[in-house]
Amino acid sequence: MNPRLTTLEPSLIRELNARKKPGDLDLGLGEPVLPPDPTVLEAALEWVTRNGMRYSPNLGFDEVRAAVGNYVGLSQDRICLTNGSQQALYLALLTALDPEHHEVLIVEPGYPAYAKIAQMLGIQCRSVHLRHPFTPDAHHVLAHVQDKTRAVVLASPNNPTALIWPDQQLQILRTGLEDRWLIFDEVYRELYYTPTPPARPELDHTLLVGGLSKCASLTGLRLGWLGAPKQLMPLVLRAHQLMTTAASTYAQRVALEILQRNLMGAQRPLYAQKRANLIESLDGLQYIEPEGAFYCLVKIPSRTPSLEVALQLLEQERVVTVPGVAFGAEGYLRISWAGDPDDVRFGLERLQRFFSFLT
Amino acid sequence: MNPRLTTLEPSLIRELNARKKPGDLDLGLGEPVLPPDPTVLEAALEWVTRNGMRYSPNLGFDEVRAAVGNYVGLSQDRICLTNGSQQALYLALLTALDPEHHEVLIVEPGYPAYAKIAQMLGIQCRSVHLRHPFTPDAHHVLAHVQDKTRAVVLASPNNPTALIWPDQQLQILRTGLEDRWLIFDEVYRELYYTPTPPARPELDHTLLVGGLSKCASLTGLRLGWLGAPKQLMPLVLRAHQLMTTAASTYAQRVALEILQRNLMGAQRPLYAQKRANLIESLDGLQYIEPEGAFYCLVKIPSRTPSLEVALQLLEQERVVTVPGVAFGAEGYLRISWAGDPDDVRFGLERLQRFFSFLT
Repeated sequence: MNPRLTTLEPSLIRELNARKKPGDLDLGLGEPVLPPDPTVLEAALEWVTRNGMRYSPNLGFDEVRAAVGNYVGLSQDRICLTNGSQQALYLALLTALDPEHHEVLIVEPGYPAYAKIAQMLGIQCRSVHLRHPFTPDAHHVLAHVQDKTRAVVLASPNNPTALIWPDQQLQILRTGLEDRWLIFDEVYRELYYTPTPPARPELDHTLLVGGLSKCASLTGLRLGWLGAPKQLMPLVLRAHQLMTTAASTYAQRVALEILQRNLMGAQRPLYAQKRANLIESLDGLQYIEPEGAFYCLVKIPSRTPSLEVALQLLEQERVVTVPGVAFGAEGYLRISWAGDPDDVRFGLERLQRFFSFLT
Repeated sequence: MNPRLTTLEPSLIRELNARKKPGDLDLGLGEPVLPPDPTVLEAALEWVTRNGMRYSPNLGFDEVRAAVGNYVGLSQDRICLTNGSQQALYLALLTALDPEHHEVLIVEPGYPAYAKIAQMLGIQCRSVHLRHPFTPDAHHVLAHVQDKTRAVVLASPNNPTALIWPDQQLQILRTGLEDRWLIFDEVYRELYYTPTPPARPELDHTLLVGGLSKCASLTGLRLGWLGAPKQLMPLVLRAHQLMTTAASTYAQRVALEILQRNLMGAQRPLYAQKRANLIESLDGLQYIEPEGAFYCLVKIPSRTPSLEVALQLLEQERVVTVPGVAFGAEGYLRISWAGDPDDVRFGLERLQRFFSFLT
């Protein structure tokens, strides 16, 4: 057995979900529940019926890589199509760092898998915590970069804070990192509620991670991409080929339909409406106002550890949330508002009731 | 950059393919060209349209794992659905071995990716070569097992020999390995031309690798599976989750349709016909008679290195083959007969002409 895997801690998100009983209100889930656009799925099936379900080239079909490249602002030779953005993250950490000599710095609060993938790959890993209320702060991150730090990982829009890194902060960070890699996770890119789309860092030394899952309600399709610097692409190709040959031909055709029809942001107005409902339901609670994604960090009005709060809340009020500690955001619960607005409203009512006994 | 990846040799198969020009006869490809059954693709789309394209559990949907378990003879809790059998191979090597202390022994001739995945994972790797004409020989393999050998990898039906391991040989091997892992690649399982289906080893300490790609003409769907010993499943779960979350929901529904309708072997008669045509066209050549898969090793009638022969053959006769050296089968060319029978016939005619000048 591989000892690196036996020592990996199990996921808190999964643990909470495993305790969920039928009828519980689920504000824990990290995926859209909107149905995907059926016409793109049908168009992709038609293509496959005409052309067969053959392998694509290892990095993906040229025309799909070109469409993704066009969408993210990179030439197609810098694009690798992956089995979801999760695989793109894995590929980014696998290829960009030398496990023997390099360290990766993870900006928290953040997605817990970043550190776990690093651990699994034997890469040394440190975290830098953004200060309350988790406002993006390039100078603070840069102050934690050391000589052997070869990569920094962050997400914008962020999971779990739902905050977006402003252009100026990204520029300061990117410049300050010099030739270090920035692994930039933008899987929530199209879900923003700010006047302008989220900023992207300068891409020369940046590994861009994205996909269809969150923005197009296609979590189960497993189609993502990695936009990598040119010098890393030969490594990405070999690793991707050996890990999984290529992304699904069917999923790639779905991606092409979505990108060609400019549908990546099609569900944003629906989420904007959900967000408006959420803000109403949050009245009376302390929280971090979401700028993107479909999460919200709600402050726990006591010093009780968030894991304990989440477990009690599930036990007593039958509401599933994720404890902030899972993301490096102790003192908060992460709620997801991707689901049914009534579930969100009732769930938050119960949360308020529960909190009133806590204080 | 990860130095383990920079030192990986590029694939000879890819190299030959890159030199292919339009109009060349391609006997190099490793995938079916038959169209897949459209009704299973449509049925899966209907399911997705009704139920959405949500994440499945990390190891796959229960009902699909049960159907695969039933097919391979394992309980469903030992099944992980993967992005193609390639990912199952990667997971097998990643979870079963401790890179610091263990060694894997690879039975050759074999699929070149086994050794490359091991190298990528930092696992020490040795090969044992079956003696000409590559007849499966358990005692020969066992004689090469050492103390630190913790796993043996073999495929049956085999790529490139197209030979099948007989039941008795598998039993001797499995018993002789004691508590060592056997990674058993049966991705070509349903393509056999022997009176009975290929034997399977006893499964207690065996990691079974399979999938839809080769048998159901769905290489581009990327749906495979790993059947792993119980004690490895927690590691498989964590690694799979961090690498790629889960296999595609759509692809899993396709698999369920195929397994429920008992279609895994549906294309075997078509291949049996292709094989009969092949044997006719092979008249006058020395070769290893294929028992399974859709490959055939053709003997080179001189001592010229197979890479040189393959390159000259491509240059002079415009026929793509794969040099045996890529698989540990120097002295042979691997031809694939999955394609159009006329291509195979004309390709072999040109091969004979080329060989007549070689001797």
